[in-house]
Amino acid sequence: MLFGRQTRGVASAAGLLTSQSPKTSARIARTQQQRLASSSAINLYGDEKNLKFQLFDVLNVEENLFNKSARYGDASREIFEDALATSLKIAENDFAPHNRQNDLQEPKFVAGGEVEINDGVKPALEAFRNAGLFGAHADYERGGMQLPTVVTNALLLPLYAANVGTTTFPFLTIAAGNMLNAVGSEEQKQKYLVPMIEGRYYGTMNLSEPQAGSSLGDITCKAFPREDGTWSIKGTKMWISGGEHPLSENIVHMVLAKVSDPKYPDRTEPGVKGISLFIVPKYRINDDGSLGEKNGIELAGLNKKMGWRGITNTVLNYGEDKESIGELVGEEGRGLATMFLMMNEARVTIGLCASALGYAGFAASLSYALERRQGRPVKGKDPSADQVPIIQHSDVRRMLLAQKAYSEGSISLCLYGSLLVDELHDPSHLSSQEAEDKALLLDILTPIIKSWPSEWALEANKWAIQVHGGYGYTRDYPVEQLYRDNRLNMIHEGTNAIQSIDLLGRKVHMQKGRAFRIWVQTMLKDQDAALKLGQDLGNEGLTERAKSLKEAIERLQETTECLASVEDPDLMLANSHEYLNMAGHVAVAWRLLVTEAAAVRARDAGREDSDFFESKSVVAKWFFKHELPKTEHQAKLLTALEDTNLTVSPDILCA
Amino acid sequence: MLFGRQTRGVASAAGLLTSQSPKTSARIARTQQQRLASSSAINLYGDEKNLKFQLFDVLNVEENLFNKSARYGDASREIFEDALATSLKIAENDFAPHNRQNDLQEPKFVAGGEVEINDGVKPALEAFRNAGLFGAHADYERGGMQLPTVVTNALLLPLYAANVGTTTFPFLTIAAGNMLNAVGSEEQKQKYLVPMIEGRYYGTMNLSEPQAGSSLGDITCKAFPREDGTWSIKGTKMWISGGEHPLSENIVHMVLAKVSDPKYPDRTEPGVKGISLFIVPKYRINDDGSLGEKNGIELAGLNKKMGWRGITNTVLNYGEDKESIGELVGEEGRGLATMFLMMNEARVTIGLCASALGYAGFAASLSYALERRQGRPVKGKDPSADQVPIIQHSDVRRMLLAQKAYSEGSISLCLYGSLLVDELHDPSHLSSQEAEDKALLLDILTPIIKSWPSEWALEANKWAIQVHGGYGYTRDYPVEQLYRDNRLNMIHEGTNAIQSIDLLGRKVHMQKGRAFRIWVQTMLKDQDAALKLGQDLGNEGLTERAKSLKEAIERLQETTECLASVEDPDLMLANSHEYLNMAGHVAVAWRLLVTEAAAVRARDAGREDSDFFESKSVVAKWFFKHELPKTEHQAKLLTALEDTNLTVSPDILCA
Repeated sequence: MLFGRQTRGVASAAGLLTSQSPKTSARIARTQQQRLASSSAINLYGDEKNLKFQLFDVLNVEENLFNKSARYGDASREIFEDALATSLKIAENDFAPHNRQNDLQEPKFVAGGEVEINDGVKPALEAFRNAGLFGAHADYERGGMQLPTVVTNALLLPLYAANVGTTTFPFLTIAAGNMLNAVGSEEQKQKYLVPMIEGRYYGTMNLSEPQAGSSLGDITCKAFPREDGTWSIKGTKMWISGGEHPLSENIVHMVLAKVSDPKYPDRTEPGVKGISLFIVPKYRINDDGSLGEKNGIELAGLNKKMGWRGITNTVLNYGEDKESIGELVGEEGRGLATMFLMMNEARVTIGLCASALGYAGFAASLSYALERRQGRPVKGKDPSADQVPIIQHSDVRRMLLAQKAYSEGSISLCLYGSLLVDELHDPSHLSSQEAEDKALLLDILTPIIKSWPSEWALEANKWAIQVHGGYGYTRDYPVEQLYRDNRLNMIHEGTNAIQSIDLLGRKVHMQKGRAFRIWVQTMLKDQDAALKLGQDLGNEGLTERAKSLKEAIERLQETTECLASVEDPDLMLANSHEYLNMAGHVAVAWRLLVTEAAAVRARDAGREDSDFFESKSVVAKWFFKHELPKTEHQAKLLTALEDTNLTVSPDILCA
Repeated sequence: MLFGRQTRGVASAAGLLTSQSPKTSARIARTQQQRLASSSAINLYGDEKNLKFQLFDVLNVEENLFNKSARYGDASREIFEDALATSLKIAENDFAPHNRQNDLQEPKFVAGGEVEINDGVKPALEAFRNAGLFGAHADYERGGMQLPTVVTNALLLPLYAANVGTTTFPFLTIAAGNMLNAVGSEEQKQKYLVPMIEGRYYGTMNLSEPQAGSSLGDITCKAFPREDGTWSIKGTKMWISGGEHPLSENIVHMVLAKVSDPKYPDRTEPGVKGISLFIVPKYRINDDGSLGEKNGIELAGLNKKMGWRGITNTVLNYGEDKESIGELVGEEGRGLATMFLMMNEARVTIGLCASALGYAGFAASLSYALERRQGRPVKGKDPSADQVPIIQHSDVRRMLLAQKAYSEGSISLCLYGSLLVDELHDPSHLSSQEAEDKALLLDILTPIIKSWPSEWALEANKWAIQVHGGYGYTRDYPVEQLYRDNRLNMIHEGTNAIQSIDLLGRKVHMQKGRAFRIWVQTMLKDQDAALKLGQDLGNEGLTERAKSLKEAIERLQETTECLASVEDPDLMLANSHEYLNMAGHVAVAWRLLVTEAAAVRARDAGREDSDFFESKSVVAKWFFKHELPKTEHQAKLLTALEDTNLTVSPDILCA
């Protein structure tokens, strides 16, 4: 591992105090430097070896994607390894250094509706752009590198880990670009998408409004037709990340609004009908492609967040004092459908962000635990002996193992989902049946991929702080920021409650349960392969875990059948959060087992790096012993149709 | 409920944005005001009714304490009710208004080693002082009100909920004062304790050093004897809350240091031997009681924390440039023992702080859920119908019930522990056997009382944010601050890992398991009474829960016996955190059942307020269905002596 060596401890030692006497400063720095003298080379932003292992051993993307797909035929292991090395370098050199600064000096509203942003952001995004990453996923014909999502997501992971705020600018640009690519006209692609792929224009998503977050049918933003075929957009949008900033030549807003009648400017039709998607650029674009007049988009304010402060989060007023002119993109009335076309990808990315922050906390606390000395072994407490590195204490190891399991399981799950995105993007090598199956599989996994990492990688960050003790609670170490940043992931891109209703109220029922059955069959196939491998090699641990997974899958199946047969949707959904969590635990156990099986195979094939392969068994063992059995209680609760959540009245809650 | 009506929503609406157009501002404020028009009167800082119910019904302090104890014979229901009304008023009027300001403008180091602190703090503490709360617990003869701890803790709860940072100043003063009261000489009490009770001097605890947090035997702060019988203190102390500020006439530091030989000024004896406790005031005190010269205590810096920012957290250098003169308090070499004398009380207070923050999040999110409209019922999704208050959604009710259960269970547990503190403070009405039993019971419960609320009331705060959606992630609502503030409680006053080792490695083994048996018998007695009550009244829910608790107690007993018989202490403690959590779940289930039984009794006696009494059953039901069954998995894990945490090597973790 070449990049991201633990140097933060020393840096932070110098900055430990808001102000201090020089003598104290020198003394503390000295103490911390001694602690770090033997620091091992933990990569703080991404586990290069694990990412390669996930792609080329666990998912076998060469055989399953590169060699099969026409679109991704040029992708190769070498390209990935080079690009990952670059990404880790950018993460360390360009993104990580201003991550804390992003947090301390959040974007500032300045006179004239402009925004001042931390100085580190622009050069970092220049480095990102110079590496071609804005177009990594995009089509060759648009100037992109046409890399698969599973590859680009693995490349973005270290950047999320190093600085999730700054990385959100390109993430949103890529997401908005993908939407344009899917439904925009050729003219719109030339006008907006190409400069986005070039990293000259940035993109945003404008869905929510102050009164409509989870309930998008209630938006009141209006689009009035203009004579020239363009549209006049009026209304207020809330929670718009990257809605204003001085970083790019232009900002391309993708805005949901209801097509309205200019004769009745205040009338809003209820529900989702009429919701359409519009491109509304910050600067209008002249026919020659040069920037024209500023559009009527007013920055009404910046939301002051608990974390994730590197990117502006804005309230935008469209067409308040000046007209805001946009173009319809895709079909009229199909705005939500278009948004949802890209929703799986966007939600997989949220899972990935959460996983990356979980990994960053694990790496930081592992580094710390190797160096920080405190206390002595339970046995042999000789007070005159040196204190031991805290990694010697079993509860510290518990906290590290939990973080490793939560983050590696999450990463594996997100990359699995990313591969499905790719297979669906170029299904030419699949039969129509296979393509449909994979689409259903991605559909049912998406709410889990979005939610489970956001809840459990946050739990990982909680333990990352705890490993650091009091130091972890200070802003001199990175972990408290990771915890705050990560807290957003349970909320945005559809709260976890929305995800749980999507899973249990919709996805489970799709095509009479076919999506769910496909997922179960997929898991059982992998489980069976692991079982056979374990038996063939006499590997008791693997064999036992394969059996445990089968039991857990059956438990999930019974629970799902029980819930799916409940006629009253309120009762069915009363514990949907618990169901989502249970499904997530099974999904993560599955990915950890598949990962372990790949590691066992690699070791059996005589490949070097036995500690690495062994670590996959240890992590699986930990999760199967400490976490997976929680599904027993969850199954009982769910199949009992426990209804306290449903039946408790507000009066009782307020009593 | 007279105080703390929900007004924060409106206030925050006005401050929602860092800067905004006046039109937007007015529009958003209007929207939010409409939402809040029907706001119910939820007390944001303390549930007056529940606190009274806990004291006078659940714990029956009148019969069990006031009427029995000579020391607390003057305490009465009327005194408590008046004092609680005052406390709630101070919480709302003096503590809450500057809580966010404490967070935004944390204490600042200014030239000359002074500290600038938010303007709201001083008047708030004046109000606290004027209400006599600095001396609420203290002896009459020192000018105190001699109220029991169970009373003063119930009174402090709303203040912790309203502003945990500001309340920490008096908390530390009271704790330091209690220590002085226990082991100080009469002269020391006159000199230091009396002005602390008067609220003129504040106190601090100086235990940790940069290299010695959990491992106090490794402190290197030294105390050299001076000719006049005083001591010269030299060394650096870390994490000292309230270590410097301009709020009080003097600051009385209680400092742990090792008695050292002036001939070998650099030699430190290893271990805890020689650790003694010293009073080191910021200003030396003249014989006439007036303030003398400033002592040689240099503010080396302020720690920049994630939360709990209202109180300075300092690094202090003793005797670096100027001599720092202190007095020995208690016996030489007994410093740690003295600290631990007061440790149970201090740790109960941490549990109480956590519980209070959990309650504050519950109250804030309940208020929000009643007012915020979003989405429609699962059945009958007519898009033209108004959106419903989110409390109508069952997952929101889950999040509210979870918060209510975690915080009410925690509060009940902390108040139970507080009553034990009182009974031990004045054991005159107890037989020596009873007194010993109660001391053992408090000993074994303390690590649970400190830890469980700190972990689960934090979980409550996580859900409080989630109820608010994106708004909860902004600094315009109180919940994200509560979450950050509460994160400290798992760390300070002994990390939860230390607590788990204290419980399973020490307390469980005390007197061959007697402490544990006393706890079990106490719970079984209460469980049996609840069972009989349930059966007598034909109350199926109560009956069923009483049986479930018995099973859980037996499960805990078997698990404990299994672990206690393990010879290898490393193996025994490998999952000590899980054991602590399991014991905590049983303890909280016990308190919720006792609370429910008291409510059932009250309802049976024909007392009014059936919703309130019913709510205790609903909360117990939720916890017994959703949380208590987790102990099954915990028992399995623990009795299997699962050893992954113990056996995993650092190499595997780093692989």
